[in-house]
Amino acid sequence: MDRDSAHAILLVSCVDRRGLIAAVTDFIYKNNGNIEDVDQHVDKDKGIFFMRIEWSLEGFGIPRKDISAKFTPVARAYAMDWHLYFTDYRPKAAVFVSKKLHCLYDLLYRYRMGQLMMEIPVIISNHPDAEELARGFGIDFAKFDMTGENRADQEERQLKMLGEKGVELVILARYMQILTGQFVNEFKNRIINIHHSFLPAFVGSRPYEQAFLRGVKIIGATSHYVTEELDAGPIIEQDVVRVSHRDSISDMQRKGEDLEKVVLARAVRWHIERKVLVYGPDMNAKTVIFD
Amino acid sequence: MDRDSAHAILLVSCVDRRGLIAAVTDFIYKNNGNIEDVDQHVDKDKGIFFMRIEWSLEGFGIPRKDISAKFTPVARAYAMDWHLYFTDYRPKAAVFVSKKLHCLYDLLYRYRMGQLMMEIPVIISNHPDAEELARGFGIDFAKFDMTGENRADQEERQLKMLGEKGVELVILARYMQILTGQFVNEFKNRIINIHHSFLPAFVGSRPYEQAFLRGVKIIGATSHYVTEELDAGPIIEQDVVRVSHRDSISDMQRKGEDLEKVVLARAVRWHIERKVLVYGPDMNAKTVIFD
Amino acid sequence: MDRDSAHAILLVSCVDRRGLIAAVTDFIYKNNGNIEDVDQHVDKDKGIFFMRIEWSLEGFGIPRKDISAKFTPVARAYAMDWHLYFTDYRPKAAVFVSKKLHCLYDLLYRYRMGQLMMEIPVIISNHPDAEELARGFGIDFAKFDMTGENRADQEERQLKMLGEKGVELVILARYMQILTGQFVNEFKNRIINIHHSFLPAFVGSRPYEQAFLRGVKIIGATSHYVTEELDAGPIIEQDVVRVSHRDSISDMQRKGEDLEKVVLARAVRWHIERKVLVYGPDMNAKTVIFD
Amino acid sequence: MDRDSAHAILLVSCVDRRGLIAAVTDFIYKNNGNIEDVDQHVDKDKGIFFMRIEWSLEGFGIPRKDISAKFTPVARAYAMDWHLYFTDYRPKAAVFVSKKLHCLYDLLYRYRMGQLMMEIPVIISNHPDAEELARGFGIDFAKFDMTGENRADQEERQLKMLGEKGVELVILARYMQILTGQFVNEFKNRIINIHHSFLPAFVGSRPYEQAFLRGVKIIGATSHYVTEELDAGPIIEQDVVRVSHRDSISDMQRKGEDLEKVVLARAVRWHIERKVLVYGPDMNAKTVIFD
Repeated sequence: MDRDSAHAILLVSCVDRRGLIAAVTDFIYKNNGNIEDVDQHVDKDKGIFFMRIEWSLEGFGIPRKDISAKFTPVARAYAMDWHLYFTDYRPKAAVFVSKKLHCLYDLLYRYRMGQLMMEIPVIISNHPDAEELARGFGIDFAKFDMTGENRADQEERQLKMLGEKGVELVILARYMQILTGQFVNEFKNRIINIHHSFLPAFVGSRPYEQAFLRGVKIIGATSHYVTEELDAGPIIEQDVVRVSHRDSISDMQRKGEDLEKVVLARAVRWHIERKVLVYGPDMNAKTVIFD
Repeated sequence: MDRDSAHAILLVSCVDRRGLIAAVTDFIYKNNGNIEDVDQHVDKDKGIFFMRIEWSLEGFGIPRKDISAKFTPVARAYAMDWHLYFTDYRPKAAVFVSKKLHCLYDLLYRYRMGQLMMEIPVIISNHPDAEELARGFGIDFAKFDMTGENRADQEERQLKMLGEKGVELVILARYMQILTGQFVNEFKNRIINIHHSFLPAFVGSRPYEQAFLRGVKIIGATSHYVTEELDAGPIIEQDVVRVSHRDSISDMQRKGEDLEKVVLARAVRWHIERKVLVYGPDMNAKTVIFD
Repeated sequence: MDRDSAHAILLVSCVDRRGLIAAVTDFIYKNNGNIEDVDQHVDKDKGIFFMRIEWSLEGFGIPRKDISAKFTPVARAYAMDWHLYFTDYRPKAAVFVSKKLHCLYDLLYRYRMGQLMMEIPVIISNHPDAEELARGFGIDFAKFDMTGENRADQEERQLKMLGEKGVELVILARYMQILTGQFVNEFKNRIINIHHSFLPAFVGSRPYEQAFLRGVKIIGATSHYVTEELDAGPIIEQDVVRVSHRDSISDMQRKGEDLEKVVLARAVRWHIERKVLVYGPDMNAKTVIFD
Repeated sequence: MDRDSAHAILLVSCVDRRGLIAAVTDFIYKNNGNIEDVDQHVDKDKGIFFMRIEWSLEGFGIPRKDISAKFTPVARAYAMDWHLYFTDYRPKAAVFVSKKLHCLYDLLYRYRMGQLMMEIPVIISNHPDAEELARGFGIDFAKFDMTGENRADQEERQLKMLGEKGVELVILARYMQILTGQFVNEFKNRIINIHHSFLPAFVGSRPYEQAFLRGVKIIGATSHYVTEELDAGPIIEQDVVRVSHRDSISDMQRKGEDLEKVVLARAVRWHIERKVLVYGPDMNAKTVIFD
């Protein structure tokens, strides 16, 4: 038994059946784990079971490195799809930006304040605007010019850089480029985008202009995992703010920026705290958020 | 000079130019009117001016019946599009419903409590469900079967009834039929619908099912004037409520019903208090709400 | 084994320790119960554990009448405070009102629509206003005049009536009388009040007037269990709406009424779905809401 | 006539009477001003009239320096309390902070992005924490140690510095010191504070702890002008966010910080855009917000 102040987190999804919760809680209890939090959900239409369980490693009877092996028979008995995480592990995230820096600026503040348990080894952009901000926080900055023709080449170079730096999560903090299917698939369910509308309303470019033209009374922002189809990936979080006929497009942009920052930050935090489960067919995937 | 406790309301829209506000306020002041409220807006993109001005008729120097004639020269000088209303006039509204009665039930309560300055001479439905409720409030109920083939005939009969009863406003309180272009044009900007989604997301039928499938984290309701294009008319009001993966479609319906009631009631109240101005080309019209 | 389509719900609170969840889930699993929902919470400051667990009785190995007896040894081993409920049981609720009937009207609609799994054997008031509405829904109405001097006597008669009718829950739907400590203690954590402010702001009478005078920009409504101290009981639910300098006190009342209805209805529904746990010392009690 | 792209703003309050709006709009129109925006409000209880009117100086018939003199007779005729502003004037604001820097950080970003039409000549604190951030934005930083005994002396030195730098607005961006009455009166209605609760709930210190103990389901933030009475000054803006039993005090702090930033920024922007009017007796003052 070790003296470990971290927690283990197990994310489970599988076909729903009797005994699932008992099997997992039993495994933890018999090995002297103290369950700190358990949250579970069943999609009754589809008969799928989801669980997030977090327990203290202090006094736990299995060393970290052996937990997976020991849990495997339990998981197999129920054909579970499962992942094990530890709360003291800080995943590496790359932030992609373009010219609008409000989301980046906000993320960096939260990062410095310790609100986000991750590392940011690099900030990537197709414009130079973020360089000074990145340097101010002591973070590498890499500029990749995008011409429309060189996208595949540049993405390959980006992927190489992400690989070298051990990046596990890509945050598109108002990065105005569309990623190729290849890039998306390399980081499946690990690219978080912020879209500046209340999806599925106003997909694509210039959502504030679209909202202004339509005369909506509320605007929104949506963070979602990126899939090959534009702005159609599983939604992690959304929020809204009221507008009126008095709000010009630039008023909407200003109000919307305050939303975008908060909505993206929530999504990133939930992702790195392992509170998000994605499920369903690729074209129609949704999230379970254990917040 | 009469002793009149009512107010006059003037709604004006026209091409923006200098002197508009001064011209109208001067007209009222010189005739000894006490301005109770003035609200104005300029659409700077399009250069259109909008104003709602309300003044007390107590001591006003022009009798009600002559105000229009006296104001006409002022309006002509600025090529105003204008309407004059009096706050003690109660317009007649017909409520159309189908089987879901929550919005009707809510409207009738507000109506009885004196929150809505209108008369309801008739409730119309293609189903018998609302009859008892209508009778309980002492309101006529008329049932028009809709078969899909008889729509034009039935609408003609409905229009005749609305005409006989002097109906000026049609409220679609979850009436699940689509109106013909002819009906819509007879009541242009005088048919208020409640759509159970956050438009323009989830147009058409079964919006809660659509929302559930998409996995949105917030659902909404939208009241709008009906135009020939489905769910595309000028939006009067919207509101939203949070949902999560835990909410089934029926949970969404229950939460959404609470929104629908409030959003529809606000739109109806604003309409009858003459706080709504519609402008723009038919396919792209928007509202100014002087709330 | 019976064929029972209802669910059992177990609410548990006790000092937090290892093995609690495993013990309960094991009990259910070993008796062939299918867990439909489990939600748990630990108050880390105070070291208290809370759990709500719901399982299907279809195929469950213990007859309903014996579940308590069989679970008792498990509960004792962990010194649990626990309650067992069945989802097909409809508790009896009495609604107390005064002259403002919007909450009553709203509750009755939800009741008729099947949104609230309870019975309402009686509506009680110190005014005659609600009588017609009660009769319209086929519910007994009882009037108890309150003079300020006869309160203790009248409450005794009310308690007798509630006892005879088997009432388990008292809903104060804008009942403007203050209950005695004796009444409160007979229905501890079983009296739900709606207060028309965002508590703890604007305790006591005329909260909208207080809000207007203070010039707040948002008003609220709060549902809570009634304790001896006025408006200080454990909060079940709150919600808010924006106001501005344009809103008069009566505008605030109108906006607030829409909140009060929804907030009270949520609290009542959560109570009867056994989603509320109250804990903490009487003067400082709080709720856990497993929504 | 000059070629002036700025606007003039006139804020007026006085006893309500006929002809006020006509008198002001006439003055502007006759001097060839194009009214861009007019907003007006009457407090009917107290019979007070408020107006904000903004017009383009392009082609206006009176030079800037003479507008006040020319308007004075109009104002006198109605005993108006009035102020004239120009939109290209950037008032100087000092930001006071303590150790929590989220509001400062957010203000500085908005300031740099051009969202706030003001200058920040100095950031003042009783702690050194903000110095680096201030320097990064090229703003002077001044540290004033506060011992509890030296408050009057230190405030005198602060007031001297504010005077030398021409400061017209003081922003307390989570400055945890209580100002003396003398300081408050030198900057009457020109000190904006952000309080981390939904006032009037949770006045004073540790509002998140108070909210946690009371078990509220929603927390808030309030920006207000500072008066001698603690947290009792006229409210400019408020906003709220939902919490649950799952939120610890530090979760509330994190959620609340996102509110505080936005609420303070709105209040500051409205102040410098001359959209705020304060009225009423000192102990009971409120705001009119022409947003």
